[in-house]
Amino acid sequence: MKGMSEFFSFELLATDPSGARAGRLHTPHGVVDTPIFMPVGTQATVKAMTPAELEQVGAQIILNNTYHLLLRPGPDLIVRFGGVHRFMNWDRPILTDSGGYQIFSLGSLCKITEEGALFQSHIDGSRHFLSPEQAIRVQEQLGSDIMMQLDECPPGGADGGHVRRAMELSLRWAARCQAARDPEKSDRALFGIMQGGTHESLRRKSAAALVAMEFDGYAIGGLSVGESRDSMLSVLSYAPELLPLDKPRYLMGVGKPEDIVDGVRSGVDMFDCVLPTRNARNGQLFTRFGAFNIKRAGNRDDPSPIDHECGCETCQHYSRAYLRHLFINREILGIRLMTLHNLFYYLSLSREMRAAIIAGKFLDFYRDFFQARGG
Amino acid sequence: MKGMSEFFSFELLATDPSGARAGRLHTPHGVVDTPIFMPVGTQATVKAMTPAELEQVGAQIILNNTYHLLLRPGPDLIVRFGGVHRFMNWDRPILTDSGGYQIFSLGSLCKITEEGALFQSHIDGSRHFLSPEQAIRVQEQLGSDIMMQLDECPPGGADGGHVRRAMELSLRWAARCQAARDPEKSDRALFGIMQGGTHESLRRKSAAALVAMEFDGYAIGGLSVGESRDSMLSVLSYAPELLPLDKPRYLMGVGKPEDIVDGVRSGVDMFDCVLPTRNARNGQLFTRFGAFNIKRAGNRDDPSPIDHECGCETCQHYSRAYLRHLFINREILGIRLMTLHNLFYYLSLSREMRAAIIAGKFLDFYRDFFQARGG
Repeated sequence: MKGMSEFFSFELLATDPSGARAGRLHTPHGVVDTPIFMPVGTQATVKAMTPAELEQVGAQIILNNTYHLLLRPGPDLIVRFGGVHRFMNWDRPILTDSGGYQIFSLGSLCKITEEGALFQSHIDGSRHFLSPEQAIRVQEQLGSDIMMQLDECPPGGADGGHVRRAMELSLRWAARCQAARDPEKSDRALFGIMQGGTHESLRRKSAAALVAMEFDGYAIGGLSVGESRDSMLSVLSYAPELLPLDKPRYLMGVGKPEDIVDGVRSGVDMFDCVLPTRNARNGQLFTRFGAFNIKRAGNRDDPSPIDHECGCETCQHYSRAYLRHLFINREILGIRLMTLHNLFYYLSLSREMRAAIIAGKFLDFYRDFFQARGG
Repeated sequence: MKGMSEFFSFELLATDPSGARAGRLHTPHGVVDTPIFMPVGTQATVKAMTPAELEQVGAQIILNNTYHLLLRPGPDLIVRFGGVHRFMNWDRPILTDSGGYQIFSLGSLCKITEEGALFQSHIDGSRHFLSPEQAIRVQEQLGSDIMMQLDECPPGGADGGHVRRAMELSLRWAARCQAARDPEKSDRALFGIMQGGTHESLRRKSAAALVAMEFDGYAIGGLSVGESRDSMLSVLSYAPELLPLDKPRYLMGVGKPEDIVDGVRSGVDMFDCVLPTRNARNGQLFTRFGAFNIKRAGNRDDPSPIDHECGCETCQHYSRAYLRHLFINREILGIRLMTLHNLFYYLSLSREMRAAIIAGKFLDFYRDFFQARGG
């Protein structure tokens, strides 16, 4: 089992007739029930939340961004604190991205070669180089439970040649990431990342090569980069099935609640996205009936909670009128209460899908989910 | 007992040989142990904190600003929500200022006449008028437990004539506030405010006239407006004694920890100030040993908490290095954790002073307090 972690495993508990899966990730920091949404904690903090609040909303695993932590406070400092778990006071599992996606988002500040990515810090313009080997080393220093390979993720509008070259480069980097793992840190899992954009032949080639390398899990990358919802659904109609049944599947950067529900229906187990946290800071709230903005005038004197049936602390204690008052006055408490609600909504959605899958009724859930939002 | 509340009382429990007092305020929303620091919740939120966190740090009463709530969301809306307690989900006592201090801080946007204050909103420039009668009506609408009279608080550098005229106008407004109380809302207390700047003769005249009007409590206003610490201490050396022993004494807008300790020594029972919350947002932390800024380079890799002996959640779980990381990256969690610590410090200080007074050892506490900060 070359390169695979001894302390990480995936247990497939149930597969719904639809193809949706329920399972368990076993990691050095505990168990994660899948399907699962992972809140994004870019700078070793899920924005505006304490670890206790993350547990309260049902978060079981969070994501940290290697690029940001590489620049500030730097992995050397985090090593001295015993890893990012202790640094940020979160003792459940952490997945780290490789840093690549954010580096490539820098555009002209970044240059990709066979060797790796040369980039300039968005903070102070300082020059850095990230190779596949260094991406692994930094993630090992951070002490994450699930590391991601360095990959090249082309933008949504990239032409076929670019998408193919990025997929092929990502495969070579995948092999280098595997080879770079420290045998003494075998408790951390490493996931390979499928690329290939919306091209089925490229996706198939990418998946086959990655599976042959035997990763602890597999991500579907290269989506949620500006393509249409139909394009994404088209990839989801075949891509998850290209991956082993007995390994976790992670759809990176996805997404809206409806995209996650479609992802689960397609057999995906893990998701991450900044939407619930970022949109809360812009006043957008997610509910069973769709999303709405707290700013809208109708909320000004509305004594009802965001959602009467929601069990989160915000909906137990605060009116839309108060939340709107806080938001309009740019009060931090407003951001806190709305972030808490949105994360609770995303994690509740994960729990409900899991229960439906285990009951063999995911298609009923799926129908009800889209009916409630009038779609 | 003309104009005094039947549902509000002050119980003096102990007076230390120094003159420091320990007591209890009985209000419609429960009991407050004095001496007490009141966190400032300007816009119906103590910035960055939930009500549950305020209880956790030991807050027993908070202050709301009438000026801000008058403009947004407006008292009519708050009335429909059953008062500011329910609007903001805080069920312990609330003190409201009259709105005057903030209106006069608007400078050229404000014009004071015998009748009241004409002012323009800092938000949209709209024109408003606040009379003593309206200040009472708005505070009754908000449903606060302790209302403050409308007063004129001249700036620190005002000349003697201005200070005298403001004191005399404040007395006439005090009488109008008394007369304006709704007999059906007699559960709310009303405090008079002593003015007179740093002029002892004016302070004496102000106190005597207010005491004759029989308020539920008395505030010392017109300090913490830019005067020197020596000037403030000079006023504190005689002003509290001008007020009845059996009524609570409130030193408005004070202050730094050392100013509060001196205020208690002078026989003051209640304090409010934005320092612990505002300075947390600027990275300044209060400790037994004085204040320091989290930004300073020495904190970059410091694994110790703000204060090893502090019992707050922040000091239990987070290092100075992590707090500095959050602060430098402008993360809301940093503001939250530092606000929590600062409020815990201020409320712990209140509790420690109270225990020392009850034990008759306030002067020992006082000496130790200033020795710890090397002063």
